Amino acid sequence: MSATLPQFKAHFARIDRLTQINSLIDWDQQTYMPSGAAVARAEQSATLSELIHELYTGEKTAQLLTQCESELAGQDPDSDDVRLVAVARRNYDRKTKLPTELVAEIARHTALSQELWVRARARNDFDAFAPALEKMMDLARQQAEHLGYKSHIYDALIDQYEPGTTQADVAAMFAVIKPQLIALTRAIADSGRQVDDRVIYGEFATDRQRALTLDILKAIGYDLQRGRQDEAAHPFCTNFSRDDVRITTRFAPDYLGQSIYASMHEAGHAMYEQGSPVAYEATPLSGGASLGVHESQSRLWENLVGRSRAFSRYLFPHLQQAFPAAFVNADVESYYRAVNKVQPSLIRVEADEVTYNLHILLRFELECDLLTGSLAVEDLPDAWDAKMQEYLGITPHTDGEGCLQDIHWAGGLIGYFPTYSIGNLLSGQLWHAITQALPDLDAQIEHGEFTPLLAWLREHVHGYGNKFLPRELVPKATGEPLNSRYYLDYLHAKYKDIYGI
Amino acid sequence: MSATLPQFKAHFARIDRLTQINSLIDWDQQTYMPSGAAVARAEQSATLSELIHELYTGEKTAQLLTQCESELAGQDPDSDDVRLVAVARRNYDRKTKLPTELVAEIARHTALSQELWVRARARNDFDAFAPALEKMMDLARQQAEHLGYKSHIYDALIDQYEPGTTQADVAAMFAVIKPQLIALTRAIADSGRQVDDRVIYGEFATDRQRALTLDILKAIGYDLQRGRQDEAAHPFCTNFSRDDVRITTRFAPDYLGQSIYASMHEAGHAMYEQGSPVAYEATPLSGGASLGVHESQSRLWENLVGRSRAFSRYLFPHLQQAFPAAFVNADVESYYRAVNKVQPSLIRVEADEVTYNLHILLRFELECDLLTGSLAVEDLPDAWDAKMQEYLGITPHTDGEGCLQDIHWAGGLIGYFPTYSIGNLLSGQLWHAITQALPDLDAQIEHGEFTPLLAWLREHVHGYGNKFLPRELVPKATGEPLNSRYYLDYLHAKYKDIYGI
Repeated sequence: MSATLPQFKAHFARIDRLTQINSLIDWDQQTYMPSGAAVARAEQSATLSELIHELYTGEKTAQLLTQCESELAGQDPDSDDVRLVAVARRNYDRKTKLPTELVAEIARHTALSQELWVRARARNDFDAFAPALEKMMDLARQQAEHLGYKSHIYDALIDQYEPGTTQADVAAMFAVIKPQLIALTRAIADSGRQVDDRVIYGEFATDRQRALTLDILKAIGYDLQRGRQDEAAHPFCTNFSRDDVRITTRFAPDYLGQSIYASMHEAGHAMYEQGSPVAYEATPLSGGASLGVHESQSRLWENLVGRSRAFSRYLFPHLQQAFPAAFVNADVESYYRAVNKVQPSLIRVEADEVTYNLHILLRFELECDLLTGSLAVEDLPDAWDAKMQEYLGITPHTDGEGCLQDIHWAGGLIGYFPTYSIGNLLSGQLWHAITQALPDLDAQIEHGEFTPLLAWLREHVHGYGNKFLPRELVPKATGEPLNSRYYLDYLHAKYKDIYGI
Repeated sequence: MSATLPQFKAHFARIDRLTQINSLIDWDQQTYMPSGAAVARAEQSATLSELIHELYTGEKTAQLLTQCESELAGQDPDSDDVRLVAVARRNYDRKTKLPTELVAEIARHTALSQELWVRARARNDFDAFAPALEKMMDLARQQAEHLGYKSHIYDALIDQYEPGTTQADVAAMFAVIKPQLIALTRAIADSGRQVDDRVIYGEFATDRQRALTLDILKAIGYDLQRGRQDEAAHPFCTNFSRDDVRITTRFAPDYLGQSIYASMHEAGHAMYEQGSPVAYEATPLSGGASLGVHESQSRLWENLVGRSRAFSRYLFPHLQQAFPAAFVNADVESYYRAVNKVQPSLIRVEADEVTYNLHILLRFELECDLLTGSLAVEDLPDAWDAKMQEYLGITPHTDGEGCLQDIHWAGGLIGYFPTYSIGNLLSGQLWHAITQALPDLDAQIEHGEFTPLLAWLREHVHGYGNKFLPRELVPKATGEPLNSRYYLDYLHAKYKDIYGI
């Protein structure tokens, strides 16, 4: 036991509470903040970010770290105490490399840039957003140079979201899955079979969608006493403690294929955070292991559960009740096929499971090129459209459905996109392990029994919080390192059935 | 010019931005926060409050103050620079008297206590709230002892909300108005005339009330690009910069006399903050002069404007459009009388103008007694009911419509209530000055022209921000110190007409 640890924990609790507040003011900006407040919010965000950075990188943190490390020397390297200090050390070492002014500048620019993005996207006006993106890329480059890297400037950035992963790892991952995904997409197109998805197009009143998604969220285990769902331009999940984990979604009044799956996706993230151990609250061990592991949870609930035949059977009576006109003469199998239609499309968050990772590949390649400067910001729309044509055979009509569709770059999240593909692969690998452990899973889902599944995730993933690195956690949960085989097998089996290939 | 001033301003801007964030997390708690998050929110609030307090009372503030004061010695005492430093000095001197631990403890307890209050109020369960109130009173006493006072412990607390005002000032004010208010209430009761207010009872769909109040807010000049209206248990106004000033209201589906006037009341506060000079933003001069002056703005818009015959004429066609069933056969004079019905009632925020200040008197006396200990917390419900009987001749059926109705004590706002009466008196005095300056005011209001009125307030009240103390500001705006005559005259004239007395 370390005598300094209580003091260490109190210090980090203070930092953590301020960080939670910083997430709340960002949530507010994306949900309810009046537009005229953007400049003030940027200053607020910059001030708080600067302060958190000062506290994290200050003399006191250094002293507490050194003292705890010496007191804990020789103890079980997997104990909570040792890991707690190790995670804080990793963060401290990374943060001390960044000048406070740069941290504040990034926070300030992020708040402004997100506001510009919202407007530019609504008006399909890339030029209005380009200077902000230019500056964001410049800030990301400065950040990467301060953080340092061995091989590629991208390594410094992705490491913030997926600790231990490099640009080369991501390139290698895509080298394996890209040809298979393109081949599968082609085989589906060549199958001659068309999925009729008219059942999910029509009139779906927003308030009914809202009520329906809330019912689904409650059923699958998202605790609304410790969370809530709001509407925002871009669905997201954020948390301000394990007891306040919020999600957003968006409702299309003429299309049902969006809100249900966006809600389930974000709830997957949210249940991960809600399942973080109480003992880890407000310590460096709280929350998820990485964004990739996080995404494995969201995609598992969105796709492996949400778009399964079993869940469609569970959901169908609820759909019939909420939207009788649309579903009274429909059948569940048509619905299942409709929400699994494979078709190259423009919007990532609406893409089917087969083509989704090609959207990520495109973003990964473009952000690498923007970072290294081999692609100029002004040429981004053309480069985007060219790659869309190359990978998916289609071209956006506007920048709003092209390179302005995602908030990530506006939000300073450069090096973040690959975590979506890592998460997809991991969701397949986890699903394989879960179906071994829960042989009745399909029947349970069909009957609305989600507790065994959530309990498995709580035990094998959520309950570890941020204690282990992804490369440690994945074998603990599944018995082996990340392996793309399971997700590819899942895709092949599912779509072979749907498209008869 | 002071060479240190830019550094001084940057330091205080930092403190101000953090204070704005602290207001935002409180707004969130009162509007959207899930109930399970109360403990975490208490910790967040305590952490941030502690930090703000440390920054405000730290060595750096002391040095900057001393240096600026010496550099500005001999300059115009009414210049912005001199006043800026003087206001900061006043705050600094007050805050340094409070130990950081007490500040954090109050913030933490406030967050928890508000959450308990919401539940206790919903269940009419005073016992569930009593221990929190007991602790709050104890914290207020500790606070007052640290702040110091000459005559009465209450002086230390009210000074935070109404600088320069004492318990004796408030007692003297009530000594003048209490007999006149009681006599007027009695004369109205004895007039034999009954106001029929059935027109504002019925079915008023919440979403139509929401749309109508937003239309009114826009019309009177509340800038919704820099504000928004949400729903909360207790209507309030808060701001996180002059460009983000938010209000809340509540809608009763069977009663129209609440939401419109609550919205106008809060908008009165909000327009004051929105009118704070740009140059004062994030400095100690931003915002309002005191809570009393603030309340003069809210009550002016709620009552002197909102419940006037001229405004009723303006509003009536909008009412007929929003609620045709209720208003198609009604006439504007009946509506005007209905919203000005004088009748002793249980809920302060719904009280008519004549009895309203008796509600405040009751709270003022009770909180004095709770503070000095001459009234025990456990005896509060009985004491409340006894005074209601004495001043208004009625008794609450439950604590929810009795001593649990207001959030103030749960929120640590002890010594705050008298500012409502100060504001009422000042609203009458301002109105007198305004009608001298704007002889066509009634006609303007009837035609929906609120710009001249708002412009007058901007020039004579809002534009001073927090630069002057109330006792300096009131003569600047009205030509004389606070005088209860104008408000009493206004009440007598208005209700003489309505009740024919």
